[in-house]
Amino acid sequence: MNTMRVNRLVICGVGLIGGSLARALKAAGAVGEVVGVGRSEASLARARELGVIDRAATSMAQAVPGADIVVLAAPVAQTPALLAAIRPHLGGGTLVTDAGSTKSDAVAAARAALDDEAWRFVPGHPIAGAELSGVDAAKADLYRDRRVVLCPQAVNRAQDVARVRAMWEATGALVSEMSETQHDRVFASVSHLPHVLSYALIAQILEAPDAALKFGFAGGGFRDFTRIAASNPEMWRDICVANRDALLAELDGYLATLGALRQLIDAGDGAGLEAVFARTSQARTDWAKQQEK
Amino acid sequence: MNTMRVNRLVICGVGLIGGSLARALKAAGAVGEVVGVGRSEASLARARELGVIDRAATSMAQAVPGADIVVLAAPVAQTPALLAAIRPHLGGGTLVTDAGSTKSDAVAAARAALDDEAWRFVPGHPIAGAELSGVDAAKADLYRDRRVVLCPQAVNRAQDVARVRAMWEATGALVSEMSETQHDRVFASVSHLPHVLSYALIAQILEAPDAALKFGFAGGGFRDFTRIAASNPEMWRDICVANRDALLAELDGYLATLGALRQLIDAGDGAGLEAVFARTSQARTDWAKQQEK
Repeated sequence: MNTMRVNRLVICGVGLIGGSLARALKAAGAVGEVVGVGRSEASLARARELGVIDRAATSMAQAVPGADIVVLAAPVAQTPALLAAIRPHLGGGTLVTDAGSTKSDAVAAARAALDDEAWRFVPGHPIAGAELSGVDAAKADLYRDRRVVLCPQAVNRAQDVARVRAMWEATGALVSEMSETQHDRVFASVSHLPHVLSYALIAQILEAPDAALKFGFAGGGFRDFTRIAASNPEMWRDICVANRDALLAELDGYLATLGALRQLIDAGDGAGLEAVFARTSQARTDWAKQQEK
Repeated sequence: MNTMRVNRLVICGVGLIGGSLARALKAAGAVGEVVGVGRSEASLARARELGVIDRAATSMAQAVPGADIVVLAAPVAQTPALLAAIRPHLGGGTLVTDAGSTKSDAVAAARAALDDEAWRFVPGHPIAGAELSGVDAAKADLYRDRRVVLCPQAVNRAQDVARVRAMWEATGALVSEMSETQHDRVFASVSHLPHVLSYALIAQILEAPDAALKFGFAGGGFRDFTRIAASNPEMWRDICVANRDALLAELDGYLATLGALRQLIDAGDGAGLEAVFARTSQARTDWAKQQEK
């Protein structure tokens, strides 16, 4: 059904996200050549060894001219430098998209680095993180039935947005569109903030004199709650910096909600606590049911 | 190897925890008769239908005399009333233990309600919560390789502590001992606080005007982080009230840690954030490896 085909795909940052995109498009027969660009020669060699990429390029000059789509899949702080390096080699119908977890910063970077070529940049975000990272974790079905958000810009041509959409649909993903502001607020709430909260719990325990005892008796609830605290530090550093404003807004809202719960606990207000817990556990149960559909 | 046998076991509150204990002891051939006592006739009838209990008692007078061990497995706020109801029927070698997630309150309740019979009460806590609850979720292997903490008191006889320990070991659990103060501090940190934090995230999203959009794009990290927010509201209300002091201490420590992270985000201090994330993600990874052993 999907007759989309990318003749040459360039992936900047061949880790879990970029590598899984390459694997998925190859499995779908939707890509010709996959070219990898990255900071680490060793990981590009590994990507080639695994068959994730067909060729490693040592410069954008080698990789970008003639490419159909260039995907930025490196930690988001690298986006401005990557776009600046790509800029001189853009021509023909080459499109650029990204897979970063933050979008307002990507839009701003494209505006600054690409200026009159900014129409080529279609911001995107596949919602398929994992605590794993690196090309060895890449798999062809990572995006199957997962969400991908695109944040089309006024400068984009409809046919180019459609092309990036079709690429993601070829991986089995479900593609939505929203503005970059809306995107950053939503993901600050349901992804970035939980990561910060989970990291903070581990940080607090590490500071405690009885840390070993605490870790020793941590059970299943702790395991689930802290799974995301094993996530890649560089990636999450960049997300926190790039989505600073939306994240701070959500964090401050959270501190207010948590402060209200603290007051209920301090007052021993069982009825008040039960009302909050009943509402939230119902909402979480409803959400899980919705997800199964 | 384990030749422990409880001739008559009384379970007050036949839900996931009490029901799984009954099933496990039956599977191990370590129990004669299991008698259920509870607030809900319907759930006692269901427990009998499922074969979890052999008999439902409508009063402590019917259940307790002649029992070897009485286990309190109801939400912890019921502990004082249950102990007071049990007290007149205690005799012979009958022991009482509990399965509550908080222990200082249970010790205080036993001291107040049992006075000169307080030697019979051996406080306990099986670490096998689940977001599920109710007798239908009870299973014989819930405690296999899971931890159980006992908090023996100066008034307990060594042989009685050993008997409660042997009961839990017959379920396949690994039994440890610590003081009730130590217990409550440890579990406030690794269990009670994460529940409050997870409930709070859902509560915050529910307050947002774009709640539906946020829930709609929540992914795998959110699912793990909020799994415990589907937990039983009454049980967690009681835990927050019963372990108020230790929970507030941990919550305030957490707020301080989170406040420091907030400052790093606000300052755009990428190096500072990465240092915290690297330390915590390493600790979480090490913890997971330790758990696999």
